[in-house]
Amino acid sequence: MNKIYVKDIKNYIGKEIEFSGFIDVVRDKKWVQFVILKDSTGKVQLTIEKSEEKNNEMVELISSISKDSVIKVKANVIENEAVKLGGLELIPSNIIVISHAEELPFDYNNLDGVNIDTRLDYRWLDIRNEKNMLIRQIESTLTEGMREFLYKENFTEIHTPKLIAAASESGSEVFEVKYFDRLAYLAQSPQFYKQMAIAGGLDKVFEVGPVFRAENSNTNRHATEFTGFDLEFAHIDSYEDVMDLEEDLLIAGLSKVKERFGEKIKEVFNTEVIIPTKPFPRIKLSELYKELHERYNFEIPTEDVGDMNAEAEKLTYKLAQEKYNSEFMFIVDYAATKRPFYHMRDEQGKLQGYDLIWRGTEITSGAQREHRYENLLNNAKEKGLGEDVKFYLQFFKYGCPAHGGFGIGLDRLTMLLLGLSSLKEAQFIFRGPNRLEP
Amino acid sequence: MNKIYVKDIKNYIGKEIEFSGFIDVVRDKKWVQFVILKDSTGKVQLTIEKSEEKNNEMVELISSISKDSVIKVKANVIENEAVKLGGLELIPSNIIVISHAEELPFDYNNLDGVNIDTRLDYRWLDIRNEKNMLIRQIESTLTEGMREFLYKENFTEIHTPKLIAAASESGSEVFEVKYFDRLAYLAQSPQFYKQMAIAGGLDKVFEVGPVFRAENSNTNRHATEFTGFDLEFAHIDSYEDVMDLEEDLLIAGLSKVKERFGEKIKEVFNTEVIIPTKPFPRIKLSELYKELHERYNFEIPTEDVGDMNAEAEKLTYKLAQEKYNSEFMFIVDYAATKRPFYHMRDEQGKLQGYDLIWRGTEITSGAQREHRYENLLNNAKEKGLGEDVKFYLQFFKYGCPAHGGFGIGLDRLTMLLLGLSSLKEAQFIFRGPNRLEP
Repeated sequence: MNKIYVKDIKNYIGKEIEFSGFIDVVRDKKWVQFVILKDSTGKVQLTIEKSEEKNNEMVELISSISKDSVIKVKANVIENEAVKLGGLELIPSNIIVISHAEELPFDYNNLDGVNIDTRLDYRWLDIRNEKNMLIRQIESTLTEGMREFLYKENFTEIHTPKLIAAASESGSEVFEVKYFDRLAYLAQSPQFYKQMAIAGGLDKVFEVGPVFRAENSNTNRHATEFTGFDLEFAHIDSYEDVMDLEEDLLIAGLSKVKERFGEKIKEVFNTEVIIPTKPFPRIKLSELYKELHERYNFEIPTEDVGDMNAEAEKLTYKLAQEKYNSEFMFIVDYAATKRPFYHMRDEQGKLQGYDLIWRGTEITSGAQREHRYENLLNNAKEKGLGEDVKFYLQFFKYGCPAHGGFGIGLDRLTMLLLGLSSLKEAQFIFRGPNRLEP
Repeated sequence: MNKIYVKDIKNYIGKEIEFSGFIDVVRDKKWVQFVILKDSTGKVQLTIEKSEEKNNEMVELISSISKDSVIKVKANVIENEAVKLGGLELIPSNIIVISHAEELPFDYNNLDGVNIDTRLDYRWLDIRNEKNMLIRQIESTLTEGMREFLYKENFTEIHTPKLIAAASESGSEVFEVKYFDRLAYLAQSPQFYKQMAIAGGLDKVFEVGPVFRAENSNTNRHATEFTGFDLEFAHIDSYEDVMDLEEDLLIAGLSKVKERFGEKIKEVFNTEVIIPTKPFPRIKLSELYKELHERYNFEIPTEDVGDMNAEAEKLTYKLAQEKYNSEFMFIVDYAATKRPFYHMRDEQGKLQGYDLIWRGTEITSGAQREHRYENLLNNAKEKGLGEDVKFYLQFFKYGCPAHGGFGIGLDRLTMLLLGLSSLKEAQFIFRGPNRLEP
């Protein structure tokens, strides 16, 4: 194979190469044809002199070929300072058409007037847009950076089942699957199974995989299926350890992105990748309420007391920037009634968990988990949970280390990183109540 | 945090540390208690002198504590050549019980007489077994090695939807999901979406994620949900390029495993990790039939002509070892009728795909894909596929590079690597027609 990519063509100056790419533009001049070819790494110019008789066949081919067709050329790589694209051009001796393109339904280089639904209907054309292709590469790089960090810390990557027997955490928002002669459900998170691994003695585990939420809501921040980045680790002293690890993880991921795409992100998304410094500011919910009241005259609505809401998240970002010069802020001391039964509480009933706010949006809930069977049973009862969590409670009967963890929505993280307006832009293939295609 | 793991205790000789772990064994002697503690990295001895009065409380605690409870100790790390476990011991000044264990339903250190179903019912106890814990760490390492290779080759990691609108490839074996007021299906492979990424210009993509098969069969090799390692890349010349890449990928994964766990695998699984050399032997199906007949008097049954069956796979392994001194063998020239419609055929109708056999089992089907809309449409029609693949055919209308790829079942790979008898042992949490718990 050894396909040569645009970014590497400069290493072949003076040589003959084979190159294959999409046709970006054809400029058919009187004496010469300029064909701009592209692949996922950039663009290169192909130059065909019309005056040369040996080029007749190629000239004819190029005159009739449509944009976005794919061709493969045998060509010499020539240095030419006049060429804007890397100061080099390809002089072809042969061209083969790999794939003919029909006329495109819209111009993906100019998506301003194109409806997001049309774009999603033709997602494979939509991601040919430079910006959209970058989103994919950046999300992959972010994941790579975070995974590298976890591998270095001796985490084990696990793959937990998505088909589960009980509707588990919150029964109402779960998808039902016909499973032979019974019903199964799609996992809303790997939470229970990450903890099973901890009870199994694996000590440090993570998973990157799909999670499913049967929420019939059409907002920019919600999807019925998205990619979760989840981890759990043992032998912690408190949820402070969990926050510490999340700081390191995010710094590792963002650093990798900045290193590889920092300049490009500035240029294309007009935003800066800021690597946070440790520790991120941490604030108690009651103090936060006070600050938000004093500074922005914000009062948390009665039904949200002990918790956050969307406006509070936005103002918290403002506070984090103004008071702490930080894009991130941890909030602790949520009300136990507002949090899942498996979050640990101390002797005073104080919740041992946190949320992390980034750029005005909650990106994680993390916590030390309750690992003591009796306490967990009581918490579950208090929340009115019965048979559905019985299998899960068993994990804690035969010894289990103290542990904690968190989950991050990978697409949401990417959305915030690049300042995108919606998960529809951030996900490779968006899924919502009205969107199951393509 | 900075939890100290067993493997690192040797760095703290002469110092006081905090250490937390499961109780493996208590040896309560007349004058001294030996407590073996363990975490995911090994075992360490805790020594408590009964004669010392300050130890009374700890001695009492240890006398009554059950195996597999978790304790946290404050202790001095002392060098002691007499101690088998690393020549060091912990002399505690304080012990806290983190978690009490009830009596275990079976001894996970001796699983010989334990039914596999009991083991799966209590999977979190089952993986406390050294061998089973190693399986998880080795699968993670194998994935890490393969991923590292792909990152280095500039592959982009994608996450394709598992909820899909059409039953796609093979309608009969697909799980049905209630999706608001309509039906969705669980993806049997990321095939169509990997190719969508290629049509989108992403050039090189991979995914590690769950795939779902509603097969009501209870064999050692099948599961209803398992982890697929799938990739696809563009601008190839033929399926030979795909085989080349698969060779490099497997060598990278196996090398990482051998480097980190080679000795341990020999010791615990009594098997050798053999790093194959390139190229793996490649044989045409017709030649293979001939060889199997001449050497082993094997005749392929009429219904399998143009394809393989389980016995042929086993004998192919034998042939690969005897004739080529290889554990791997590529088989090419399958009948197009026996392969999916999206595999490319040449002008003579010859299939441009392959299977890879390792240790007697098929681990991959790979191919150059048909990227030309008209040909793909004809292939689909020939297979009687209609509306269900219509959305997929659209991907190829607007230009698409030549491309190919393959998928590997990650758990099956792990099973073969370690000589396990069943996917039930290889998967973290097995899923089959009769197994949806825990």
